Amino acid sequence: MNLDRRAFLGAGAGAFVCTLAGQQIASDGPEPDLEKLSAGIEVPPKVRASARQNPLTPAQTPTPAPGGTRREYWIVATKARWNIVPTKRDEMMNKKITGSTKFTGWFYREYTENFGAPKGPVSMPGPVLEAETGDTLVVNFRNDLKIPVTMHPHGVQYTPEMDGAYKGQFTDPGGFVQPGKTFQYVWDCKEGTEGVWPYHDHGPMDPMPLYKGLFGFINVRKKGAPRPDVDHYLVFHQITTATSGLARGFQCINGRAYTGNTPTLRAKVGQRVAQHITAMDVNFHTYHLHGHRWKNAAGKVVDNETLGPADSLTVEFTEDNPGRWFYHCHVFSHLHEGMSGWYIVEP
Amino acid sequence: MNLDRRAFLGAGAGAFVCTLAGQQIASDGPEPDLEKLSAGIEVPPKVRASARQNPLTPAQTPTPAPGGTRREYWIVATKARWNIVPTKRDEMMNKKITGSTKFTGWFYREYTENFGAPKGPVSMPGPVLEAETGDTLVVNFRNDLKIPVTMHPHGVQYTPEMDGAYKGQFTDPGGFVQPGKTFQYVWDCKEGTEGVWPYHDHGPMDPMPLYKGLFGFINVRKKGAPRPDVDHYLVFHQITTATSGLARGFQCINGRAYTGNTPTLRAKVGQRVAQHITAMDVNFHTYHLHGHRWKNAAGKVVDNETLGPADSLTVEFTEDNPGRWFYHCHVFSHLHEGMSGWYIVEP
Amino acid sequence: MNLDRRAFLGAGAGAFVCTLAGQQIASDGPEPDLEKLSAGIEVPPKVRASARQNPLTPAQTPTPAPGGTRREYWIVATKARWNIVPTKRDEMMNKKITGSTKFTGWFYREYTENFGAPKGPVSMPGPVLEAETGDTLVVNFRNDLKIPVTMHPHGVQYTPEMDGAYKGQFTDPGGFVQPGKTFQYVWDCKEGTEGVWPYHDHGPMDPMPLYKGLFGFINVRKKGAPRPDVDHYLVFHQITTATSGLARGFQCINGRAYTGNTPTLRAKVGQRVAQHITAMDVNFHTYHLHGHRWKNAAGKVVDNETLGPADSLTVEFTEDNPGRWFYHCHVFSHLHEGMSGWYIVEP
Repeated sequence: MNLDRRAFLGAGAGAFVCTLAGQQIASDGPEPDLEKLSAGIEVPPKVRASARQNPLTPAQTPTPAPGGTRREYWIVATKARWNIVPTKRDEMMNKKITGSTKFTGWFYREYTENFGAPKGPVSMPGPVLEAETGDTLVVNFRNDLKIPVTMHPHGVQYTPEMDGAYKGQFTDPGGFVQPGKTFQYVWDCKEGTEGVWPYHDHGPMDPMPLYKGLFGFINVRKKGAPRPDVDHYLVFHQITTATSGLARGFQCINGRAYTGNTPTLRAKVGQRVAQHITAMDVNFHTYHLHGHRWKNAAGKVVDNETLGPADSLTVEFTEDNPGRWFYHCHVFSHLHEGMSGWYIVEP
Repeated sequence: MNLDRRAFLGAGAGAFVCTLAGQQIASDGPEPDLEKLSAGIEVPPKVRASARQNPLTPAQTPTPAPGGTRREYWIVATKARWNIVPTKRDEMMNKKITGSTKFTGWFYREYTENFGAPKGPVSMPGPVLEAETGDTLVVNFRNDLKIPVTMHPHGVQYTPEMDGAYKGQFTDPGGFVQPGKTFQYVWDCKEGTEGVWPYHDHGPMDPMPLYKGLFGFINVRKKGAPRPDVDHYLVFHQITTATSGLARGFQCINGRAYTGNTPTLRAKVGQRVAQHITAMDVNFHTYHLHGHRWKNAAGKVVDNETLGPADSLTVEFTEDNPGRWFYHCHVFSHLHEGMSGWYIVEP
Repeated sequence: MNLDRRAFLGAGAGAFVCTLAGQQIASDGPEPDLEKLSAGIEVPPKVRASARQNPLTPAQTPTPAPGGTRREYWIVATKARWNIVPTKRDEMMNKKITGSTKFTGWFYREYTENFGAPKGPVSMPGPVLEAETGDTLVVNFRNDLKIPVTMHPHGVQYTPEMDGAYKGQFTDPGGFVQPGKTFQYVWDCKEGTEGVWPYHDHGPMDPMPLYKGLFGFINVRKKGAPRPDVDHYLVFHQITTATSGLARGFQCINGRAYTGNTPTLRAKVGQRVAQHITAMDVNFHTYHLHGHRWKNAAGKVVDNETLGPADSLTVEFTEDNPGRWFYHCHVFSHLHEGMSGWYIVEP
């Protein structure tokens, strides 16, 4: 076995296995052919019977609360080549990263109205879906991959049809969006759903599409509340050999590994900063920021917080400490496999 | 090595080892002969000297607080054949589960007064021990296994003699209940102990008896507080090859694995629902429920919470969202090895 | 591979790997020669250019807040032989621990003024740095090891120069204290930093020096708040073969493993007890105390709390339950590899 591969899993990287279409997929094994495997998955009865896919037909009438707004997004699941370590260096340990770091990632990519054109390059995570209390999110989703995938939201209010989860024989159309098809998700941001939440694939090939990059954030802001001056969004997740086909694994933030490749966050003294972190793999992580501290949800002052898969953590403070700082996962093995970055504060 | 066995431990299933009576037991190894091993354990001095076992003699006089009640239970540790996946199917992924899924589990089984007769079939977890502020729980425990075991409670008030923990040479009689013997545990549910707590074996063969099913819940309700309309009790735990003697491991909820086998929880719109979750293995888990959210202990709205071994989590909400939902651990490898179930809400 | 070695990592001990000076170090592998490896690390530019090391020159003028005090410490990084299991017994399971349990640990050792003389024997963790709101901690640090190391504090306020973190080409002098050199760290305990925090090495050989024992606590007490009668300080951490060169790993508390070797904590009925726990490895742990319960930061009554690496947990209660109790990590594999101890309460 490749030393790097063994070392990564020896490093406390979260191992996983799943059985998809009868094939066991191990995190330290080779990359499976998901397109081929997915061909064997039976289309669920309600999906076969549905007229709700292609062309796009609303499954329910979006009805924002009085005073609420309909917030419409156009999102395409697509694939693209992606470089996990573009600089080939780790600025934290001042060392070179050798070997190939490119793989084919899968992305939620935002488009202009009616799937007109991409709004920008692919990103990991996908676009932040923004709303305020009382708004309704209408997400028009088109699947350009060759595998059925979905969008499953956390936190917001939705009916079972809008769950975006594959449920075997009970699957609704939104839980199995076939290649080339579209589906309109309608999610209510009613009072009590305020917060920052992940969304991610929850289709019949779960969790492999998510491991390749199909995740993003929803931010439901409290109506009338002051916005922070800066919002940072971070996903802690691993990319293993089975996900990437590469010779080794990485502990990533937003699809990148190692300081100088992961997001370099920025703020200025005096700004109100909000940092939103979620985890999207089989590991537990902590979020630590040098030179800063904040009150956790319970009101305790902390500078390090534990989070598990799909937990969402928001860290808020008013910036008062200029300089070049590290933010990182404090699980030492994750830190040393790439899970750290710069936070640069201007005076 | 068996592929499934390797795959399970490769799946981030919590590995464990312990040395019992000089023998190392590894989670991915064969099932040890615990009865044979336990024969080599020395009976601790205070246990040998004690007249408190068989016949049952109260070690202390149960004295409920003024207004409190003596709540008496009769519980027998016993074994029985148990099927981890009775339907042989995973309804979440719509797939067949092959291979044997039966093993000999160990159970806390509730009996009628004076160990008259079993109140029902064996269950994993054992009976919920219910009390209110100021009550005293009197648990008459008989060990019908061939290995010394105990009952160790969390959360409630007790003296060291009522700890139910093996302590080597310092062991009290309740910390080493020998085969065929009985012991009366007295635990005070004084003010400040309200909550839902696990109880479990903590005897000289710990943790193997617990891994086989010796765990349950205590629910100390605040006196006079309104009861929820529905209480659900869930234990997240793994059953590995060393525990079961089976060819592979499972990520279980209440001794069952895979949707349709794990508890199908039920409630109706308008009901006040309380869900109580604990973890009983070497893993950290999260509890996620689709289509719902709740306030965590700190008052933050969440739909996913992290818990470690022996943590207890209570999730409360008023039901407002009819349909068929998933609840599951969001550690993807656990989810795909069985740790998910249905939550069905009637309108 | 040695059975014990394999068994330890099979036990859910947190595996790790890091690449130091181009060499991969795996937690279950042999002990690397860190002194030799560190010789290959380039001295960062700002460190080369600095006049701030040897002799000791204040990098900034310590300015306690009005009413605050300058609290000065003299600390030396040093090494010494250390026995992980001095009694060679586990009192919890009443069993003998065989094999060598001694290794060369690395320590933060407190000295009298101007590095006069050691204040006492080496300890794991190092000295508790105590302060009150508004005080300034001035830590004069001398590195008697043959490898560059640092002191990185959590929680308190400091400028980037006082971070004590290696940052590759951006490293400040305090982030790379060379063998034989000294550095004066100045950390402000301003309002809002009250709490108990870890400090630890964060130098260019991170995390190996920390794994060998370079960690301690800072306690910033709220000015004027009543002190607890008893403070207990506990670090949960593993010592693996790569750290110690021993044939097996241990789950340690304060550098010791197994009940009777780990700290035997003591208190009396009526005392206000504060227990401070942090974790310093790649694992997540829980802190469980028998016979007791407390309010967590959110106000929920608990007897078990989850913590991740560098989280700090303070448990407070008024003692009311005399006897011999266990405290332990409730991850069963950690418990059975040494992570438990006695807590003895006098009437």
